[in-house]
Amino acid sequence: MVEPVGNHYVVARPVYSENLFNEEHEKLHRYHKTFWDHLKLCFRCSPQKAKKIALALFPIVSWLPAYRFKEWILSDIISGINTGLVAVLQGLAFALLVNVPPSYGLYAAFFPVLVYFIFGTSRHISAGPFPVLSLMVGGAVVRLVPDEVAVNGTSMNTSAIDEERVMVAASVTFLSGVIQLLLGIVRFGFIVIYLSESLISGFTTAAAVHVLVSQLKFMLQLPVPGFNKPFGIIYTLESIFSQITNTNIADLVTSLIVLLIVFVVKEMNDRYKAKLPAPIPIEFIVTVIAALISYYVKLEEKFNVAVVGKLEEGFKAPVAPDVGVLQKCIGDGFSTAIVGFAVAFSVAKVYSIKHDYPIDSNQELIAFGLGNIVGGSFKGFASSTALSRTGVQESTGGKTQIAGILSAVIVLIVILAIGFLLAPLQKSVLASLALGNLKGMLMQFREIGILWRKDKYDSIIWVVTFLAAVFLGLDIGLGAALAFQLLTVVIRSQIPSCTVLANVGRSNIYRNKKDYTDIYEPEGVKIFRCSSPIFFANIEFFREKLITAVGFNPLRVLRKRNKALRKIRKMLKKGELQVTPKGLICTANYTHESEEELDNNRIEELDQPTNMTDLPIRINWGADLPLGITVPRVDIHSIILDFSSVSFLDASAMRLLQKTLKEFVRIDVDIYIAGAHEDFLDKLERSAFFDEEIKPSMFFLTIHDAVLHILLMKDISSSAKLKPTEEKGRSNNCITIPSNGLRSRECTVLEEAC
Amino acid sequence: MVEPVGNHYVVARPVYSENLFNEEHEKLHRYHKTFWDHLKLCFRCSPQKAKKIALALFPIVSWLPAYRFKEWILSDIISGINTGLVAVLQGLAFALLVNVPPSYGLYAAFFPVLVYFIFGTSRHISAGPFPVLSLMVGGAVVRLVPDEVAVNGTSMNTSAIDEERVMVAASVTFLSGVIQLLLGIVRFGFIVIYLSESLISGFTTAAAVHVLVSQLKFMLQLPVPGFNKPFGIIYTLESIFSQITNTNIADLVTSLIVLLIVFVVKEMNDRYKAKLPAPIPIEFIVTVIAALISYYVKLEEKFNVAVVGKLEEGFKAPVAPDVGVLQKCIGDGFSTAIVGFAVAFSVAKVYSIKHDYPIDSNQELIAFGLGNIVGGSFKGFASSTALSRTGVQESTGGKTQIAGILSAVIVLIVILAIGFLLAPLQKSVLASLALGNLKGMLMQFREIGILWRKDKYDSIIWVVTFLAAVFLGLDIGLGAALAFQLLTVVIRSQIPSCTVLANVGRSNIYRNKKDYTDIYEPEGVKIFRCSSPIFFANIEFFREKLITAVGFNPLRVLRKRNKALRKIRKMLKKGELQVTPKGLICTANYTHESEEELDNNRIEELDQPTNMTDLPIRINWGADLPLGITVPRVDIHSIILDFSSVSFLDASAMRLLQKTLKEFVRIDVDIYIAGAHEDFLDKLERSAFFDEEIKPSMFFLTIHDAVLHILLMKDISSSAKLKPTEEKGRSNNCITIPSNGLRSRECTVLEEAC
Repeated sequence: MVEPVGNHYVVARPVYSENLFNEEHEKLHRYHKTFWDHLKLCFRCSPQKAKKIALALFPIVSWLPAYRFKEWILSDIISGINTGLVAVLQGLAFALLVNVPPSYGLYAAFFPVLVYFIFGTSRHISAGPFPVLSLMVGGAVVRLVPDEVAVNGTSMNTSAIDEERVMVAASVTFLSGVIQLLLGIVRFGFIVIYLSESLISGFTTAAAVHVLVSQLKFMLQLPVPGFNKPFGIIYTLESIFSQITNTNIADLVTSLIVLLIVFVVKEMNDRYKAKLPAPIPIEFIVTVIAALISYYVKLEEKFNVAVVGKLEEGFKAPVAPDVGVLQKCIGDGFSTAIVGFAVAFSVAKVYSIKHDYPIDSNQELIAFGLGNIVGGSFKGFASSTALSRTGVQESTGGKTQIAGILSAVIVLIVILAIGFLLAPLQKSVLASLALGNLKGMLMQFREIGILWRKDKYDSIIWVVTFLAAVFLGLDIGLGAALAFQLLTVVIRSQIPSCTVLANVGRSNIYRNKKDYTDIYEPEGVKIFRCSSPIFFANIEFFREKLITAVGFNPLRVLRKRNKALRKIRKMLKKGELQVTPKGLICTANYTHESEEELDNNRIEELDQPTNMTDLPIRINWGADLPLGITVPRVDIHSIILDFSSVSFLDASAMRLLQKTLKEFVRIDVDIYIAGAHEDFLDKLERSAFFDEEIKPSMFFLTIHDAVLHILLMKDISSSAKLKPTEEKGRSNNCITIPSNGLRSRECTVLEEAC
Repeated sequence: MVEPVGNHYVVARPVYSENLFNEEHEKLHRYHKTFWDHLKLCFRCSPQKAKKIALALFPIVSWLPAYRFKEWILSDIISGINTGLVAVLQGLAFALLVNVPPSYGLYAAFFPVLVYFIFGTSRHISAGPFPVLSLMVGGAVVRLVPDEVAVNGTSMNTSAIDEERVMVAASVTFLSGVIQLLLGIVRFGFIVIYLSESLISGFTTAAAVHVLVSQLKFMLQLPVPGFNKPFGIIYTLESIFSQITNTNIADLVTSLIVLLIVFVVKEMNDRYKAKLPAPIPIEFIVTVIAALISYYVKLEEKFNVAVVGKLEEGFKAPVAPDVGVLQKCIGDGFSTAIVGFAVAFSVAKVYSIKHDYPIDSNQELIAFGLGNIVGGSFKGFASSTALSRTGVQESTGGKTQIAGILSAVIVLIVILAIGFLLAPLQKSVLASLALGNLKGMLMQFREIGILWRKDKYDSIIWVVTFLAAVFLGLDIGLGAALAFQLLTVVIRSQIPSCTVLANVGRSNIYRNKKDYTDIYEPEGVKIFRCSSPIFFANIEFFREKLITAVGFNPLRVLRKRNKALRKIRKMLKKGELQVTPKGLICTANYTHESEEELDNNRIEELDQPTNMTDLPIRINWGADLPLGITVPRVDIHSIILDFSSVSFLDASAMRLLQKTLKEFVRIDVDIYIAGAHEDFLDKLERSAFFDEEIKPSMFFLTIHDAVLHILLMKDISSSAKLKPTEEKGRSNNCITIPSNGLRSRECTVLEEAC
């Protein structure tokens, strides 16, 4: 029948309940893997698997032999040199953020690259220091080794502090490396999927603000202690502005000039991208010029500006991390590990999509973890990747991590041989260079508006992430933002749009009743759709909406009916009622008794199904109640729940749903569930959802199937018995004279239900 | 057409795309309230609204005038006396948990009841101390005022410590009251919906374990300091077992006897519920007997047991809370506020459902907030409600809070007059009485198994909540459990079951292709269903599943095609290809050049739509490619995405979905979206989702509509042009000779796609 008949949708088939459909169409028995099967599969060993894991652990084994030497080596060399120069400058600059002497930044730019060369899966990112991470490590450093009063301590004292600080930075780095490695081993890389674009954008913007504020200290050359605690940024700004008069003018002027030059040249690089053979390496040029000027003008002596100073040549022997420091820095280590990995992975992701190759989040964790362990052991500080540096590596033609290793060689040369050339460079120049790269990140503010138009929640996530990360600090802020983001998912899932549907156009289409004029709602049938999963947080809401939609509370109706039955029994006993073929007839007025008090057992009795077996006649609740007895009117006989959007139910939801359905069934309202997912029935069956009142036969394939079924049933029953039109007319008089407080309340309820 | 035709589902209507349907069926223009409208409505003032708010603020104004004096007063008096006796004992017992002298427990059992009488909305709960809360306050108390070395300090010293402790407890209580009040004012009561049944069950079980452990100290009479920190329970147990030899045997024996009696009698109460006129008030009886024995046997002197001692008579003047303490206890205040409210509200909820009256979560927050503010001011400690006490109040016939106020009168009498009678009571008896109520809570362990069968996630929530609350402490544990619970919702939403559907039974039913034998999948059409909302955490998964389902990566195909086009252009230029009416014909072999390197701009070019306007002929990708040029085979022409379960899309998802759809459109695969929610189109339109490639016309009402549309289109196009059967036969030979590493990889991809 799936043949186009002109442009017509023509279907003729039996009305299918879920049961009937499964009878008619044989279902293949498929074995569904259980949780244990998956676990077994995961831990099964085989030579192939071992080989695969080994290869995955050393990606270099796969890509290095396939290296196309002739084609790629030139690009990689060019890229490596460019990246290496940037890495040197960034290493020096970011060391300032960590509050350690600049030369240690070179170690941070060297060791992780070597490790990443062997273990990394991205071909394009440049491992090494990242400003935000440096800032986070710096926070731990100044917390554990605070500044002594001011900078005018003796030289001896300062170097001791520096040594301690290097040790703390190395320990935190080592710790974060261990954490990353462990997370990688337990396959925790999936965590990255929770870092949504809005969150990353808000977070990196906040990071840029932090970097901006942290560099002010160097640009103005003011002694500002680090505040690594919630609202630290406010304390920092307060500290800066309280001593703004002590600004070193020479440093400020240099900074502004450098910033201006960098901005203008970068803008030109961007604008004439197509025309320039390569971007102007403005950072390198500025550094060389600034160092020359500083050396020849003797800026340090004349204007007391802070310079990089003598870089320590060569390497330090590896050291074991300080256990005492490790204990105090677990929080820092953790946040550094997560943030570092998150940044690196998101950058790597961008290039992996661009160049279409796979990266492996778990392997990346292992690579950066080992990188940090090695880096930390050699007194470097936490590494990840810097957006700008990776941009340089890729845009200057880097094809593989060969470019990375060559950039490490450049750093090595600086460490071993020509570091002294950088000695006269002003720290403020380094700070300005770091700031020069922030423009892009700060421009992300524009996203708030774009996101607001697309999706309000995403916009709010951006803002909350930004504010949390700026004010609570990057670590707590990230945690808070993540929690908030998860909450938004819950909230979205939790606010279903519950609508009453009706047939539009008299075919098999059911749409929101309020939206169309040409609608048809079968008499006595309510079609109710819930457009989200139902779970603990919205099951009550679902129930309320359903009650609003049908117009009465089934439990209340049930209790009233049971109360009415009690009265009828009593009246029959007293002889105030008599059974006639036409129904019950009042022979005497019901003697108004005060509403009797029900103890608890009897209240529970009221919630049971109405039991009329002991009565001589079946009561028709829609009609023929003896005078003085009223029950709320129920003018629907069937409810169809459209569950096509209900992707899951949890235990709370199942329990309350079962209870609600039962209440409806007990007041003779039939319940049908349409469009439920295929595994729904199985799951409900397993959970003992069904009993003699709630049966699997209430499941229908589509709303239309259920509606047709209901119409057919009504057709059969109405042709079988007398049409109850007349009775229906009577039953409208559901009015009673209120006699006291409670009764009047009942009556209101009752009138609402009418 | 909505008429039952026997048991047949018969439909004939046009094939509806979303657009066509909306043209044919007039949609009512409804004004949807915006966020601002809601806000305005929320803050609009009117006399009615003011009155309603005022009435809601003082529920007593509504229920007291409607009090049915004659009917209810007797029950309320009986209930009040019973509840009052329990309240006295619990007050004394729970004061031990707070580590303050027992008499302060009476204040905690008195003031909150008065306040709740006026402000509370539940008719049945008994406000007052709750063991878990007492424990939490007690944690703060011992943290701020630790025990001095051991109990053998001078009497003077002990009383000074006690005084300080009372002050701390009162301050924490006051703080939690302020927090509750504020939360109530900002309508934060909705938070209770996040406390799922599994979470509450696990949490209260953990609380019972804490109470159990905390009472051991009194039962054995050992000096155990409080450990209010993560893993505190382990430290406590360690402390107890390390000094177990110092146990006071008299206390231990008393405890065990009391426990035994209480358990047995409670069991009898339960078993002979129906036969007993009222439960045996075993706590009261045990207390009286124990006090008498202790007094006459002089237990304190002879066996050095700890007794309640002289209760301070009368009230203390109200005090302002200690600001210093407030600052140190913000965390405790917050967790006390939340836990206290959560417990009280969940208990109140149970009875409100049972007796069918509404309660208001925000008003409850206000009532308990004020109760704690007043209680704290009068040196009481944090109050909520105790399950057992509320059970007594309701089961002995309490109808309204009149019973509550009468129970407060009983407490008042003890405070003012007969407190001295309790002086000889052993503390260990109080501890055992508190333990006697834990059985029910500890029995909740059975739920783990029941939940596991119903819903694995719920079972895991239970276990995680329990473990977190036991080991991390109730406050941090609750936070962790809540976060974990939210995460489960995200995880559930995030793992969609993505299935490929096919027509079952040749009518309009589409089911999982793998499940049925009698299926029909229209040629070249993939019907793909995603059964959950799509958002940042699963959009990548969705894309991968879609790519797996269709069998090729559209971006890769697009890039191959664009590369092929470049080659064709080059070959045409060189004259190696010639255009004939039958297609392109190779006149010379394609000269194998080394794979040329593409710079970044050119890579991006590859992602653009294939542009053939400059070519003399339109390339048919399924066939007729010149020798040496290969592209992956694409053997589907249409994809239908069933979005009926996709309840929302976030910005990340929209961006990546748009990108993916575009990639498919660019390789000439038509995309249709069926069953999308009604507001979906509007939302996508607002988000600039549509452009010249992705059009709103791809939305169809149902899968079947889309399938019919596709078949019709194919029908038209195949009758309009020559049938491409022959060409199809040829295009299967998509095999090429690998020339080097990269090419061989391409070839594999390509063969996979074949």
